[in-house]
Amino acid sequence: MHATPATPPADTAGLYTLPVEFGDCDPAGIVYFPNFYRWMDAASRHWFVLRGVPSWREAEARWGVIGTPIVDVQTKFMKPAMYGDRLGIETVVVEWRNKSFVQRHRIWRGSDLLVEGTEVRVFAARGPGGVGVRGVVVPDEIRALG
Amino acid sequence: MHATPATPPADTAGLYTLPVEFGDCDPAGIVYFPNFYRWMDAASRHWFVLRGVPSWREAEARWGVIGTPIVDVQTKFMKPAMYGDRLGIETVVVEWRNKSFVQRHRIWRGSDLLVEGTEVRVFAARGPGGVGVRGVVVPDEIRALG
Amino acid sequence: MHATPATPPADTAGLYTLPVEFGDCDPAGIVYFPNFYRWMDAASRHWFVLRGVPSWREAEARWGVIGTPIVDVQTKFMKPAMYGDRLGIETVVVEWRNKSFVQRHRIWRGSDLLVEGTEVRVFAARGPGGVGVRGVVVPDEIRALG
Amino acid sequence: MHATPATPPADTAGLYTLPVEFGDCDPAGIVYFPNFYRWMDAASRHWFVLRGVPSWREAEARWGVIGTPIVDVQTKFMKPAMYGDRLGIETVVVEWRNKSFVQRHRIWRGSDLLVEGTEVRVFAARGPGGVGVRGVVVPDEIRALG
Repeated sequence: MHATPATPPADTAGLYTLPVEFGDCDPAGIVYFPNFYRWMDAASRHWFVLRGVPSWREAEARWGVIGTPIVDVQTKFMKPAMYGDRLGIETVVVEWRNKSFVQRHRIWRGSDLLVEGTEVRVFAARGPGGVGVRGVVVPDEIRALG
Repeated sequence: MHATPATPPADTAGLYTLPVEFGDCDPAGIVYFPNFYRWMDAASRHWFVLRGVPSWREAEARWGVIGTPIVDVQTKFMKPAMYGDRLGIETVVVEWRNKSFVQRHRIWRGSDLLVEGTEVRVFAARGPGGVGVRGVVVPDEIRALG
Repeated sequence: MHATPATPPADTAGLYTLPVEFGDCDPAGIVYFPNFYRWMDAASRHWFVLRGVPSWREAEARWGVIGTPIVDVQTKFMKPAMYGDRLGIETVVVEWRNKSFVQRHRIWRGSDLLVEGTEVRVFAARGPGGVGVRGVVVPDEIRALG
Repeated sequence: MHATPATPPADTAGLYTLPVEFGDCDPAGIVYFPNFYRWMDAASRHWFVLRGVPSWREAEARWGVIGTPIVDVQTKFMKPAMYGDRLGIETVVVEWRNKSFVQRHRIWRGSDLLVEGTEVRVFAARGPGGVGVRGVVVPDEIRALG
């Protein structure tokens, strides 16, 4: 599936880590896959928090940004995870675009790559009258993060 | 995004339908996107149930199949959904492979296409000793469904 | 557990109904219990919607009410539910108080009572500066509903 | 609500800790309450794991026990939690009964008590034919844990 096999991150300090709980698993005994999206979403925000981006509540006051909703995702599920596993998510920004960015998440169990997800997310402000959302240009301060 | 725009299904009888609840939405007031995967997963099973495939418990007794875990998904999120919306999911099998199949889900709110997900799923049996899962050849009776 | 056994509702028109999906179940093959709270929450809101209460967005504009967060719940889990079950939730308001109300939910599978939850909920407005929530007096129009 | 106010645990080493994520919150901006049950369930298992109880898969092989489903819960929600909060859950076994036990969870944000849940759980084995669950006597080795 991969021309060059992915290698586990040497530096694990920046990983978003989590325990797999019993309730994250389905009757087949493996993680119910929508939970991986919940965790990649947390890892996406964690990437910004680690780099000092203020909470979204402050970000709304400062830039009008209320979040980074997803517009496109490609995900490969290579191996299942089970209750008792400890997972680490390695997140990188692959590309900054005008109103969006591409983030890639690799979910590791030790040196086993379980899931890889590549997301396109937009910077979103509240829509007209506070209803719904609309895309805004990525603030320069954020674009400079990495 | 689409060379040919998708058109809403003329026949809505086969749709998997659901109400969007308050608790499905996030602080931005829109559906938290992992929930769309939960719903596409339900629609995936619903496709089989509608065509007379027995429950997975019976399917395990008959074919050893315990489920159809996902190995690859591509998803486009075109418009958000909100509390109070009623959604319909249109599911088709695009391709049958040896141990897997490709299913496409379109999530509609009336004639608005909100989400499109294309999944590759495998037919899975319990792994050695009942732990984990392994892929098995798609049973002919199932391959004949549509 | 019950001095008088609960009897299934004669009128099923007002029930909040839902299918139990594979993904709602845990490795023991039964509904993972936090999902019952998700469904009782939906049934709580459904009770108001059925009686013509406007959406919470309109309710905020009209009464400042943004929701009815829970402050106290007692729940009895009598029988498990499984994938493929169809459930119906019977909801009644047992008592109106000044800023709160007591709602009782019974979750039925046909004539089997699976879960009974009794909730105290408050009427909540946004807190000072739009952060957090605070309780408000139940609007008279709502108190009159039943 | 409490005759004697609860005091934060002096020893925080045994707490089950977790970050509140954006996706755990609802349109009111506070944790969607069913998530607290997910976390108390994880804390319930964590209590056993910390005391050396083998994973449920081994526990099934050894005692036939597949889990500890809930039969009764009383929960008080005192203060809301929000995205960015770090929570710690303090779990104690209040009482051992024949086939069940009472566990109390207190969810803290620093010295703020947010939620208190008191659960009755049974020790469960698979039901006849592997379908559903049935209660079994609490194994002595487990009863001796604390």
